[in-house]
Amino acid sequence: MTEPALLAEVWRGDVCEVVLRGHVAVVAADGTVLAQAGDPDARTTLRSTVKPLQALPFVSGAADALGATVEEVAVACASHEGEPRHVEVVRRLLSRTGLDESALSCGPQWPYSQAATHALVRAGETAGRVHNNCSGKHAAMLCACVHSGWPVEGYAAFDHPLQREIRRRMSDLAGIRLADTPRGVDGCGLPTHGVPLRYLARMFAAASAAGGAFARCQEAMAAEPFMVGGSGRFDSLLLGWVGGALTCKSGGAAVWAGVARGGGPGIAVKLESGVGAGMAPVAMGVLRALSLLPSSGMPAELEELERGVLRNWAGDAVGGTRVCVELERS
Amino acid sequence: MTEPALLAEVWRGDVCEVVLRGHVAVVAADGTVLAQAGDPDARTTLRSTVKPLQALPFVSGAADALGATVEEVAVACASHEGEPRHVEVVRRLLSRTGLDESALSCGPQWPYSQAATHALVRAGETAGRVHNNCSGKHAAMLCACVHSGWPVEGYAAFDHPLQREIRRRMSDLAGIRLADTPRGVDGCGLPTHGVPLRYLARMFAAASAAGGAFARCQEAMAAEPFMVGGSGRFDSLLLGWVGGALTCKSGGAAVWAGVARGGGPGIAVKLESGVGAGMAPVAMGVLRALSLLPSSGMPAELEELERGVLRNWAGDAVGGTRVCVELERS
Repeated sequence: MTEPALLAEVWRGDVCEVVLRGHVAVVAADGTVLAQAGDPDARTTLRSTVKPLQALPFVSGAADALGATVEEVAVACASHEGEPRHVEVVRRLLSRTGLDESALSCGPQWPYSQAATHALVRAGETAGRVHNNCSGKHAAMLCACVHSGWPVEGYAAFDHPLQREIRRRMSDLAGIRLADTPRGVDGCGLPTHGVPLRYLARMFAAASAAGGAFARCQEAMAAEPFMVGGSGRFDSLLLGWVGGALTCKSGGAAVWAGVARGGGPGIAVKLESGVGAGMAPVAMGVLRALSLLPSSGMPAELEELERGVLRNWAGDAVGGTRVCVELERS
Repeated sequence: MTEPALLAEVWRGDVCEVVLRGHVAVVAADGTVLAQAGDPDARTTLRSTVKPLQALPFVSGAADALGATVEEVAVACASHEGEPRHVEVVRRLLSRTGLDESALSCGPQWPYSQAATHALVRAGETAGRVHNNCSGKHAAMLCACVHSGWPVEGYAAFDHPLQREIRRRMSDLAGIRLADTPRGVDGCGLPTHGVPLRYLARMFAAASAAGGAFARCQEAMAAEPFMVGGSGRFDSLLLGWVGGALTCKSGGAAVWAGVARGGGPGIAVKLESGVGAGMAPVAMGVLRALSLLPSSGMPAELEELERGVLRNWAGDAVGGTRVCVELERS
């Protein structure tokens, strides 16, 4: 196995305080590795990067049959902040199943959004399953089960028909049999798989080339970027800027996938230390190296994320991030 | 510069999801490197590891003159959770100066403790400077200024007499002139320095060998471990277990220092990715390799931290940490 590549350094004043290493794979829909940094065969858990792929059974049938809106398709692909609009849209999506929130098998989680959490606390409420950042995906999975006549009970289990169907679709796109890969349990209780990074990139490239249900997800994520993450979130800001040309999704433990709309390429980035904080500068560096970003018009909030600005508790900028990623073209 | 060493892997089920690399230096009071992993000359910011050293001017005069208690000395060395007892003790320490909370130059921060934050929100309060994890250190610095007749205004500035005095003491102990090192601004607005890791370890070893004011800090941290961090925190749990034999302190961006009471050795650990989450397993691995821990009696909460257990949102254990650190003895 190749060593990880140096991807970024975080500087506090005159001192390099943090070093971020990892792997990048840029892959065509046919599986050809087009460019890389570190080891494109380094294994990564898929985590929430694949939510737009886990949504395929939902989008392929249940979404239209149950009348799901574009917002609801977007939140099915989301790791959301638990802001009031997210919760409202997830509740609406869930209501299409006739089930209540106890049917969601993700655990309870305080909203990532501090403002949303404080509002709940002030109102005397507690963290619920609907506030879990994965609740949109889980509501969409329940829709798919209800629509397909699969049991609702146990929908998150490895052998449930829904999970088999998701695995079949993702395996076809990736060109790897996911059932044969090592696996673990994701934060929300669903199975997650460990695959060489290039298969994650290929999955996105192949899905984007195939169009169909995945294109529905891409369109929804571009039309409703807030629903995919929320206030100040990297994916939402990037989709809001260039969602017509690119689709992207972050996952836990610092994995990120992006894909050019249409034929790809697919891009997968893994920071080996699992710290998502450095992802925006690194992913933006990769997208720039691939000439996949416009030369102007970037929102100021995204620019600050790209620079990876460090702030002290008083709010002053005390450092920033230097991206070091160098892609080797194949 | 030597490459970082592999220090730990975090596994989610059957998949290695996170790789933690970094550097370890084990150093005698005279500066001799006794053991290492990675590069003992890798530069690290000192951050909050040196709070027990930044407290030396306070402990050397102001503490007794102003009647500070053992708890107050402990909180002067703390990165606390902002729990009610921490806030109460910091307020008592600050009251010895006759100044109010606006004199603290650390910015406002919601307590690290979720329970404490939610209690403030429920009470309609907001984040204050006194809740900042560094507020004990800042209150102690104000005590030192008042006692020494130094200006209170600007006490956090690089050229203020208090910061000069702290720098002089720390430089003497480390055997390096801190004024000549690259520097940055810490989260709480104080200067922080970038030094080769072995000087951080030496500083602790030399301070522990010297006794005097630093021994007062060590005794207070051992007697009041809760004040040094708070509920569930690694330093508090370790000090509560073996504080009579060891002193330790974590700092931001994943740096940690420990020292055997008396003559040392001093130990400094830096995870290069800046993620503190992996520190407990790695630091415990280093302490075990050095035979600095008892063979029994470890509290269950510390054992869970050492195992670096991963839990999903439902609270189930879904993974853990494998420590890989191998010390090379010099």
